[in-house]
Amino acid sequence: MIKVSVLYPNVAGNEFDHDYYREQHMPMVKRLLGDACLSFAVDRGLAGGAPGAPAAFVAMGHLFFESVDSFRTAFGPHAATIQADVANYTNIAPELLVSEVVKA
Amino acid sequence: MIKVSVLYPNVAGNEFDHDYYREQHMPMVKRLLGDACLSFAVDRGLAGGAPGAPAAFVAMGHLFFESVDSFRTAFGPHAATIQADVANYTNIAPELLVSEVVKA
Repeated sequence: MIKVSVLYPNVAGNEFDHDYYREQHMPMVKRLLGDACLSFAVDRGLAGGAPGAPAAFVAMGHLFFESVDSFRTAFGPHAATIQADVANYTNIAPELLVSEVVKA
Repeated sequence: MIKVSVLYPNVAGNEFDHDYYREQHMPMVKRLLGDACLSFAVDRGLAGGAPGAPAAFVAMGHLFFESVDSFRTAFGPHAATIQADVANYTNIAPELLVSEVVKA
């Protein structure tokens, strides 16, 4: 299984609507991607490692797929719609990370 | 529920023994932390977002706890033992990220 993580770096002046992201954006993404997207998860960054250190990421969304190919096939036709919604909840340019889940 | 993620940045010249990390290090951490650690997960970085872009992180380990306090209480007495094992599988200085799991 692979995990596509969308990471929102904790840059200066960032804005992020966690409610919209969890309740509107991510469910919309799941709906558009259909059964190819096995599930999704959402994290909210709280803190870094050192005492008082800020979280490196404000929020993270994770989408699970059987394979990189099934992600690409499902995502391609909806990429523009999904990306157009980002401005509705944040001014952060997200970073993408594709991982293999070696222990779930 | 909170998630303590240990992120291993994909720096130049890095070495990482994924088998040791998954089969030895993370199970040892779970054993030391006991029931306070609800579960753990391991990811292996595959790729970034742009075509051909490398993954920002080579590997990620995630430990789940009821609260930040239960993590601190469980981790403190074993921090030195856990940190001493890191050199057995990598030369990367990991980054810590504490998150709230808002949708699992």
